[in-house]
Amino acid sequence: MPELRHDPIQRRWVIIAAERGRRPSDFLQEVIPTASESCPFCEGNESKTPPEIAAIRNGTRPNQPGWEVRVIPNKFPALRIEGDLGREGIGAYDRMNGVGAHEVIIETPQHSLNLADAPLEHIHKVLRTYRERLLDLLRDQRFKYILIFKNHGTAAGASLTHPHTQLIATPVTPLTLAEELNSAKDHFREKERCLFCDLIRQELESGERIILATDKFVALAPFASRFPFEIFIAPRQHHHSFAEASDDMLHNLGMVLKEVLLRIKKCLKDPPYNYLIHTIPNVRVRPRRASYWDTIEQDFHWHIELIPRLTQVAGFEWGTGFYINPTAPEEAAKYLRETEI
Amino acid sequence: MPELRHDPIQRRWVIIAAERGRRPSDFLQEVIPTASESCPFCEGNESKTPPEIAAIRNGTRPNQPGWEVRVIPNKFPALRIEGDLGREGIGAYDRMNGVGAHEVIIETPQHSLNLADAPLEHIHKVLRTYRERLLDLLRDQRFKYILIFKNHGTAAGASLTHPHTQLIATPVTPLTLAEELNSAKDHFREKERCLFCDLIRQELESGERIILATDKFVALAPFASRFPFEIFIAPRQHHHSFAEASDDMLHNLGMVLKEVLLRIKKCLKDPPYNYLIHTIPNVRVRPRRASYWDTIEQDFHWHIELIPRLTQVAGFEWGTGFYINPTAPEEAAKYLRETEI
Repeated sequence: MPELRHDPIQRRWVIIAAERGRRPSDFLQEVIPTASESCPFCEGNESKTPPEIAAIRNGTRPNQPGWEVRVIPNKFPALRIEGDLGREGIGAYDRMNGVGAHEVIIETPQHSLNLADAPLEHIHKVLRTYRERLLDLLRDQRFKYILIFKNHGTAAGASLTHPHTQLIATPVTPLTLAEELNSAKDHFREKERCLFCDLIRQELESGERIILATDKFVALAPFASRFPFEIFIAPRQHHHSFAEASDDMLHNLGMVLKEVLLRIKKCLKDPPYNYLIHTIPNVRVRPRRASYWDTIEQDFHWHIELIPRLTQVAGFEWGTGFYINPTAPEEAAKYLRETEI
Repeated sequence: MPELRHDPIQRRWVIIAAERGRRPSDFLQEVIPTASESCPFCEGNESKTPPEIAAIRNGTRPNQPGWEVRVIPNKFPALRIEGDLGREGIGAYDRMNGVGAHEVIIETPQHSLNLADAPLEHIHKVLRTYRERLLDLLRDQRFKYILIFKNHGTAAGASLTHPHTQLIATPVTPLTLAEELNSAKDHFREKERCLFCDLIRQELESGERIILATDKFVALAPFASRFPFEIFIAPRQHHHSFAEASDDMLHNLGMVLKEVLLRIKKCLKDPPYNYLIHTIPNVRVRPRRASYWDTIEQDFHWHIELIPRLTQVAGFEWGTGFYINPTAPEEAAKYLRETEI
């Protein structure tokens, strides 16, 4: 059973997934991009994966060919769906069982399709699948947070090249999200306005860091970007939950996401990247401080963080949480805006 | 001039070092390990670096051959030593000038020496140089924190292969350090004991995560290690400041560091790694809350964080500050203890 452990110094939780059992020699192997014939995510190889959780199919049977988007449990999950949390203290430490969900959303049956090049209607289906999985997992009271993230390219952590997104549901709210929730809440308490709405308004007025804007979404290079060409995508109007986004919103998001992915693909020569959805935690899970969540629909604003992986993160960054970015966000936004697609 | 920018959502500072001027095409170049003849850190090539700040020499003249350890300003500094902070608000954002120090400590004149293989007396000289640079820079009232860190191997962020350590002095306390200072302070307030001393005592009693222990230092795999084979090195007795470590302590630390580096070199086949010294901030800099620092000598405990870079950090980690570690720290400690060196 994987385990969650709490570090009392940096006050963060870590998943110890020792069943993945990496011995010293295991780290010396290179990741080899899987050829299409042996790829478990390819159409026709459905039997190589655990049975599917969900899929978009046109009348075909589960775990058979004939799907457009397919969701499966991760074969080597970092967290397990069964069991209780079993929280306990070990002297000064805290631990709990590694209970959670770890799923893979296979974005397309085509092994070599770049999501940037997928038809808009298909991207819309991928985004709707994200939403359906969120809605399903939010019903589980053990899960406090559900993170949806995509690793594109081995340098971004993808171990299989077939386009896919991952989902991890955790019994704790991750540190970075907790910090975002806290700063949004502090801002709202003081000003009775959403922090994100304020920043988006200021960015749209200045324009210098905007990459693109539709009537519903904005994509921009954050003022204090940690990484070169980092991108922030959010709805222009206040909205707290990706799980509650309408079809219309997701369709518009698809347009923005496709254009952003095309721009970084062209401008930065198909770089490795990660994107992540930051949405509200599972507010039905209210362990101690119910009042804490009372304004969450007003103060939090869901968004997507997209990070091209262009630089090696060095000791300075790891040791401090303090980043050195060699490209001004204004320059990054300008390069991306001016890229012809 | 580099700039420091504050992110109001994640409440962290970022260095925008746009003078390093990375355009999209600059990120596509591979880092090429420098050959010894053209290496600016090699003996005989002193004229290829900015003039030295300090050196351990046996009577030879500055910026000439004949040194054992040499300290120079970084040729492409992320922060600049001249000027005022110039703090200002830009709408909802905060910025200040990128004032700070960025130095390189060249550990040896030998291009291909692995620090693990250096004689103990030489490692002691490197550690004493760290201390001298700290003591010198702590006198500058503009600097709140001085971070000393080493990147070994290109995958760990080293752009030159010649053994070197870097030092960055910043006008803000980095996020991770601030969190450590806060948790240490909270623990002390409640219990009037040092958090680190408590954890070290518990670890020495259990023994299962100990890699090695001398009469003065302990090296262990932290209970909630973020990374496989992560190592924590600290004095066994309470002590708050690396800058105030005695020669005797540094000599003992040299023994421990050498053995740890030899063990990871042998066990993990000379992996890329980072290490970082976490010491107290510049307590002479007390901008607003003087009382905050009143107990810092009692509550903080300096230490070194060492991270072999064995896995790609993926989207999940970036987006959440929440890590998945595939190797139990107890296993890592056992492998390292049992490695024959």
